[in-house]
Amino acid sequence: MEYPNRVRSVLGKLAPTVCAVLLLGACGDAVGLAAGQPATQDNPWIIDSRTLPAPVAASDVLREAIANTPQPDVAGHIQATTFATPEEWTASISMPNAGNAQRAQALAERWSVTITESEIAGVVVRTVTPAEIDAAHISRLFVHVHGGAYVLGGGLAGTPEAVMIAHFARIHVVSIDYRMPPEHPFPAAVDDVVAVWRSLLTERPAKSMALGGTSAGGGLALASTLRFMELGLETPGALWAGTPWADLTKTGDSHFTNEGIDRALVSYHGALEGAANLYADGRDLRTPLISPAYGDFEGFPPTYLVTGTRDLFLSDVVRVHRKMRVAGVVADLNVYEGVSHGDYAALTDSPEMHQVFGELGEFLLRHLQ
Amino acid sequence: MEYPNRVRSVLGKLAPTVCAVLLLGACGDAVGLAAGQPATQDNPWIIDSRTLPAPVAASDVLREAIANTPQPDVAGHIQATTFATPEEWTASISMPNAGNAQRAQALAERWSVTITESEIAGVVVRTVTPAEIDAAHISRLFVHVHGGAYVLGGGLAGTPEAVMIAHFARIHVVSIDYRMPPEHPFPAAVDDVVAVWRSLLTERPAKSMALGGTSAGGGLALASTLRFMELGLETPGALWAGTPWADLTKTGDSHFTNEGIDRALVSYHGALEGAANLYADGRDLRTPLISPAYGDFEGFPPTYLVTGTRDLFLSDVVRVHRKMRVAGVVADLNVYEGVSHGDYAALTDSPEMHQVFGELGEFLLRHLQ
Repeated sequence: MEYPNRVRSVLGKLAPTVCAVLLLGACGDAVGLAAGQPATQDNPWIIDSRTLPAPVAASDVLREAIANTPQPDVAGHIQATTFATPEEWTASISMPNAGNAQRAQALAERWSVTITESEIAGVVVRTVTPAEIDAAHISRLFVHVHGGAYVLGGGLAGTPEAVMIAHFARIHVVSIDYRMPPEHPFPAAVDDVVAVWRSLLTERPAKSMALGGTSAGGGLALASTLRFMELGLETPGALWAGTPWADLTKTGDSHFTNEGIDRALVSYHGALEGAANLYADGRDLRTPLISPAYGDFEGFPPTYLVTGTRDLFLSDVVRVHRKMRVAGVVADLNVYEGVSHGDYAALTDSPEMHQVFGELGEFLLRHLQ
Repeated sequence: MEYPNRVRSVLGKLAPTVCAVLLLGACGDAVGLAAGQPATQDNPWIIDSRTLPAPVAASDVLREAIANTPQPDVAGHIQATTFATPEEWTASISMPNAGNAQRAQALAERWSVTITESEIAGVVVRTVTPAEIDAAHISRLFVHVHGGAYVLGGGLAGTPEAVMIAHFARIHVVSIDYRMPPEHPFPAAVDDVVAVWRSLLTERPAKSMALGGTSAGGGLALASTLRFMELGLETPGALWAGTPWADLTKTGDSHFTNEGIDRALVSYHGALEGAANLYADGRDLRTPLISPAYGDFEGFPPTYLVTGTRDLFLSDVVRVHRKMRVAGVVADLNVYEGVSHGDYAALTDSPEMHQVFGELGEFLLRHLQ
């Protein structure tokens, strides 16, 4: 066969690329055999600067929110959210907490959801009751653990997501106001969830209850379930792991690929890294009860997982999902176009919010007993 | 409350960031309200250059393959894979096709799989038979459509994935050698799948057969199913959509975020864009039978979907999955850490290959009748 000169030169220079590009999964073994700069830890790839439009295929609500978000400033973010002392942490918490408490009240009022405070086993909880309970859920319960990187979300500020779950899934919710650093690092949060869980187990069947939350809440739900199993306690009928902070180290690939692209988290460095160390309080961050991605999911309850293509935690969520599936767990992964960490809970009335919490509701109907 | 000066200044400047970072889903409504550069189409974000190590949490096989892959060169790739004439396309095809035909034979020999050529309804097909058939699959069939961006993979070169499916899922496979451009653009490929499907329907129940493939094969499986429904033909019992080329336009967000990061596809521009136009032959690329992401999935068969965090098509796969779930379809999404487009089929003996085709086999056992 005679090739034009240009094509022959192309084939000579770039055959592995042509091969890889066009017949995926068929000649890919050849990829990586060409000479060039390897991507080891010591010699990583340098990814060029790129332009990133707002995602055309995301929902209108999300796309507009992104279009109106100032371009994430990684260096500025790290500088502004690196806190040196417990006092700086405490100070950084009060303003967002006030906003979140207001949001919880506004959502509750709008959807006619009630929030009442009490205690279970000495731990402060908030009972969140929707206007209408699904007939199938009358005697069931969703046990909610809030997000906030283990530092934010104390008090009423931890309940906006609990209100969403109660409203969309039409189920009773108890949201645990677990203890947090700086005063109470790990294992206080896990201990509080265990204490509440033990108490709830005396009142109702384990499989009639779900456990879960978003971000640190998702991670804490996974870690607490690992702890239940260590203690020989019965596990919930279903888990909700919304973009769970399942690995408190910078290990997942998306921490590199989505840095400066996730509009909510921006970067591992700064607040997240600081919060990880504050929570672990000198312990190895890879301890499974701190970073449940390193735990054993054998025998875990059915788990509903959500993340987004722009989520800094994308890799960590899919790692947990894979590990669960390999362990034989019923694990349902859902990834949203253009969604940064927690956008689905942040954007009230977005299609993402409706889909995530609506489908979570269907998942609970399918798996709670 | 008294804040230290530094903290006060931080809160004043970056409260929305602190808020967004730490209590995800609770104060996120505030994100985007600050002044700054918006990310509209006319004024996208500029994402800085970044260093990207090989993904630590990927399998050893994948991580080493990536570490040994030369850093993707976007500009060079585009230049080298932009073909101007049908002759240049044809020339670019022969070398990878030869490699893929060899790979198919090597895999078949290794796993004692046989490949025999015949015709169904005037269309060339290859019957791929594994050493052992699962007892449940004795009278079932997997109808395979190969990848290759609608230009590569003709002949034996289209069968490596068919061999994998036969071997791992222990099922009879018929792989369709559909017509392709430059000579036969759309709708030849869809027409050929329809012709074979019509013929198979006279011999066995529709729900005893699966349909699917990777990349263009995954897209063609989805498009063909849309066509079956238009024609009133019964649909398969299950679909396999391995990182399907479901949108032939550059719309998905991952086309921007993963450009130069996906080691297999590298960029939409160059070969992929050229192949899209060659296949569509002047038609609107958003035609659902060309880009099934724009189709209506109502009533679709249970579908098994796979992609990876580094896949250029990540967004398009999750868009299809979401659209299916909203339409009430049983759709199972699986995303692999660090995986570029088609890596799972490219890396023989990788954990990714075993998981993908092993779980596909379980999916078929669950859904075929």
